[in-house]
Amino acid sequence: MISVSILGAGNVATHLFKAFNNSEQITVKQWYSRDLKAIGRYKNVVNIIDDVKMLKDADVYILAVSDDAVSKLSSELPFKDKLVVHTSGSVGVYDIDKKNERGVFYPLQTFSKDTTMDFANVPICIETIHKKNYPLLKALAQSIGSPSKRVNSDQRGVLHLAAVFVNNFTNQLYRIGHEITESEGAEFDLLKPLIQETAHKIQTISPFKAQTGPAKRNDKKTIKRHLKALKTEHHKDIYKLLTASIQSTHGRKKL
Amino acid sequence: MISVSILGAGNVATHLFKAFNNSEQITVKQWYSRDLKAIGRYKNVVNIIDDVKMLKDADVYILAVSDDAVSKLSSELPFKDKLVVHTSGSVGVYDIDKKNERGVFYPLQTFSKDTTMDFANVPICIETIHKKNYPLLKALAQSIGSPSKRVNSDQRGVLHLAAVFVNNFTNQLYRIGHEITESEGAEFDLLKPLIQETAHKIQTISPFKAQTGPAKRNDKKTIKRHLKALKTEHHKDIYKLLTASIQSTHGRKKL
Repeated sequence: MISVSILGAGNVATHLFKAFNNSEQITVKQWYSRDLKAIGRYKNVVNIIDDVKMLKDADVYILAVSDDAVSKLSSELPFKDKLVVHTSGSVGVYDIDKKNERGVFYPLQTFSKDTTMDFANVPICIETIHKKNYPLLKALAQSIGSPSKRVNSDQRGVLHLAAVFVNNFTNQLYRIGHEITESEGAEFDLLKPLIQETAHKIQTISPFKAQTGPAKRNDKKTIKRHLKALKTEHHKDIYKLLTASIQSTHGRKKL
Repeated sequence: MISVSILGAGNVATHLFKAFNNSEQITVKQWYSRDLKAIGRYKNVVNIIDDVKMLKDADVYILAVSDDAVSKLSSELPFKDKLVVHTSGSVGVYDIDKKNERGVFYPLQTFSKDTTMDFANVPICIETIHKKNYPLLKALAQSIGSPSKRVNSDQRGVLHLAAVFVNNFTNQLYRIGHEITESEGAEFDLLKPLIQETAHKIQTISPFKAQTGPAKRNDKKTIKRHLKALKTEHHKDIYKLLTASIQSTHGRKKL
């Protein structure tokens, strides 16, 4: 049995709490939030606290707080030589106060407030300063059904950076697709199966092999017509830059 | 029973043939390819031909050929006043020779060679010059289990354009994610569940609501660190442009 205490009340903290609480191999000892109301609805399920001084002994303390809060909160912990991890993709492991054993338990996924999350679809990137702390974090991931991978700081950094491209930037392309279709009263919904299939395809073949379309074919006529049809300079800029990017990847052009 | 003849031997033609052939409401009369070898493996299932003069009577003729070939092939058809449609997102309906009734049967999906496609996930955009031809094409879509939508030329145009953004450009972002992770020996596979979830999320909420991340939060520290970590000017350009795009959408900045 692994005992865990969670600090933080955001999406990641809440999803982790639910997953830990559902696991038979994990006990959630305590859940801290500086604002007790934020986690008040769980008071009958777990010991909720709003003062770090009330933290009791646990195998691991998980700081699921905003990036800026990690350093300060870790320095306020009233104990030492325990395993303390944060859940951020971009905060350094050394930002955690050195009085404790330090690590990172970074779930590489996007969490929404009101959806349930199957942790089988949440890869956990694990980083530890001392090798001895790795097995416990690996067991913790396993206990909620998550695949896990040991990474170093540079690898975690590029994964977080790549996540911005495949999640935030991709979502913005969906948004632009929405804008473009609505401008003519066409239904964005018609694009949803294509969006799903595009994401599905690269589960088995590489994005390189999956590529199709006018940019890859260097179909100048269609590219020209598309650029003419786009109504804002901003959309044109994105079209041009990503078309050039595809052509560079597929040997059509040097950037 | 609807009788159909297919012209063309590419991915769209082949997937349509299989779907039509599996439908109890459709007979595939003939399948034309200028290169008979390309469809030779189906010779025991359907009458394959390589000469348009051999085309017999059918309710609808489907030109599933490359954009550039539509006009010429349609002019070579040895009959008139029949319903002839192409399957392209970007070719005009008037590009079909006017001796026949003209329409478009545009499947809004990405087709791969060796995968099977559930046509329930293939919305068909239907365009006809004469309203009377719409019901047959709608019934044709229904017969293979596809949702369909009547569109005009402008709507089909923006759907095709938006498809480039949500399919080709999105896939290129996956490719860049691949490049970035591999540069540090991190595993691209770790990003696959996130990619799936990003596509899955907007099936129920709008891309606007689904957005998260440093650009939306205007988290300057992370944005600066990401730009520093990116190793090519090209990746930096894409990062900057899409970050600006998100900030414009979410009211952080004017473009």
